Amino acid sequence: MPEPLRSEEDFLALIDACFPTAHPDLLVPRGDDCALLRSPGDLLISTDLFLEHMHFRRSYFSAGDIGHKALAVNLSDIAAMGGRPHSFSLSLAAPPDLPRAFFREMFEAMAELAGQHGVFLSGGDLSKGKTLGVCITILGQPAPGGQVLLRGRCRPGDLLVVLGRPGLARAGLLALEADPRAARRDFPAAVAAHLRPLARVDEGLKLAALPGVRGAMDVSDGLARDLPRFLSNPGGPNLGAHLALPPHFVHPEVEAYCAASGCGPADRFALLGGEDYALLTAVDPDHLPGLLKILPRALPMGQVSSRPGLVLNGQPLGLAGFDHFSNGN
Amino acid sequence: MPEPLRSEEDFLALIDACFPTAHPDLLVPRGDDCALLRSPGDLLISTDLFLEHMHFRRSYFSAGDIGHKALAVNLSDIAAMGGRPHSFSLSLAAPPDLPRAFFREMFEAMAELAGQHGVFLSGGDLSKGKTLGVCITILGQPAPGGQVLLRGRCRPGDLLVVLGRPGLARAGLLALEADPRAARRDFPAAVAAHLRPLARVDEGLKLAALPGVRGAMDVSDGLARDLPRFLSNPGGPNLGAHLALPPHFVHPEVEAYCAASGCGPADRFALLGGEDYALLTAVDPDHLPGLLKILPRALPMGQVSSRPGLVLNGQPLGLAGFDHFSNGN
Repeated sequence: MPEPLRSEEDFLALIDACFPTAHPDLLVPRGDDCALLRSPGDLLISTDLFLEHMHFRRSYFSAGDIGHKALAVNLSDIAAMGGRPHSFSLSLAAPPDLPRAFFREMFEAMAELAGQHGVFLSGGDLSKGKTLGVCITILGQPAPGGQVLLRGRCRPGDLLVVLGRPGLARAGLLALEADPRAARRDFPAAVAAHLRPLARVDEGLKLAALPGVRGAMDVSDGLARDLPRFLSNPGGPNLGAHLALPPHFVHPEVEAYCAASGCGPADRFALLGGEDYALLTAVDPDHLPGLLKILPRALPMGQVSSRPGLVLNGQPLGLAGFDHFSNGN
Repeated sequence: MPEPLRSEEDFLALIDACFPTAHPDLLVPRGDDCALLRSPGDLLISTDLFLEHMHFRRSYFSAGDIGHKALAVNLSDIAAMGGRPHSFSLSLAAPPDLPRAFFREMFEAMAELAGQHGVFLSGGDLSKGKTLGVCITILGQPAPGGQVLLRGRCRPGDLLVVLGRPGLARAGLLALEADPRAARRDFPAAVAAHLRPLARVDEGLKLAALPGVRGAMDVSDGLARDLPRFLSNPGGPNLGAHLALPPHFVHPEVEAYCAASGCGPADRFALLGGEDYALLTAVDPDHLPGLLKILPRALPMGQVSSRPGLVLNGQPLGLAGFDHFSNGN
């Protein structure tokens, strides 16, 4: 019979067993009303919810997948600003019937990812909940000496570049929803992209240090939806883009998934995407070679135009993205 | 027919209508992957969940009550460190059938409280949810020139002092659960203490500046449970307390509620409490007069002893507090 968690103290002891309790920047550690942090200077801050039935299902997410992804999506926000992640707080709504081993696996995966990025847990909150829910707030610092990568800084003629494989996570999601066992067998890269997304922190730091880079954005709702946000500039003219996808833009598993499922052209599927956690950036054309030298896996995908709207291979792209509020996922 | 929110953009527009979009410390405002904040120096950070069915019911919490309390409980954590609140991020799980007017009322009450304390909204996240849930992470700064008010710094002989009316919010909760209409009529102060708790930020700042003060703590789980945490010192001997409650310690509505509901002695009920958001502090006896001069509503409630355990009027106090994880509330 799996052992449940008995109390809030029991829970906090498990947190302390999984996450380091000391860090040079943690002046007053977890356990008081607040933590006191030595500030890294100007602060990047972002927060993301990761909720059962809305963002994940326990039927095919392991506890470790949940712990990893809840933190990864937050790290990705820091990456998209070209920043260095610093620390995070963790709030958890937890069904009381989940065994201690579940939380241990979840925390261990989260702590492993945190360790890889040198971030520490500053504190959090715990409540009983009917479903499992995680809310993480992450702090970071702008890249020392680099620019802060913003949206809305593109100019017509800039080249659009993406780091990541758009659509891969969406193929993984749809395959897992249809048949988790077959998905893991037939689309392992897509499944991994959905369950354990990469946080492209190193890539963001490199972009922040490169000349000619015009900001960046975390692609979480799909390029078709996020690209207009990246191009939108409240203080200036709205821009558009002419997209021309390079040969390696569409991952072979996205091709295979689209062919097997009959869900239409793979390039449009890739642009619809969702939960890619890819980094979208734009660069002055003169500086593309320099960018590709430092980031050889970057994929040029088109050019910013002065006319609003997205055009793919000469045709207007009529795709809606993914709205967590209005859609049913 | 009430108008629902149509999309995430619609939601964010409502946020922007209710919360100021500019602040001198908000270097990159809401709307990018992260906000960029000018750091106030060393940082206090805390986070609190506020979840439907766990922390509130919509049957007797108005939308404004929810907005107020979700932020107030976070401000209270900064107050308990003797800090000045700076900014906060807001994550919201929102049932899509709630009308726009509900969220407007909720955000307006939250923004009013934020304005009173000079804190700004730096960003957040939104998801659809089956039930309404709020997660706020608050940042603050230690009082300039003052001490940071910690737990575990008491010495035997120190006098324990509370700011607030322990048990009042619990009386409000129980009365509301039994009959909201009668509760509002018979126990208005108790109902207000539960629905719209005060954040004692000014009192915390005053404590931080006073000599002889040995830290502070936010009493959220009831004094019977939180006092041992305040006295516990991982690096030293565990302490206890001899409690002697002053005449005004028990609010008249707590007396009246206990008499009407037959729930036992009012002083024990007050110590059980829960969600008091009172400030508990301890002071060197020589400095009590100075504290009472600056904070005349402070209530001395006993003395720290070298022997662990709580004693009330000479009798051991056998009360359990409130555990959000193991209890059913």
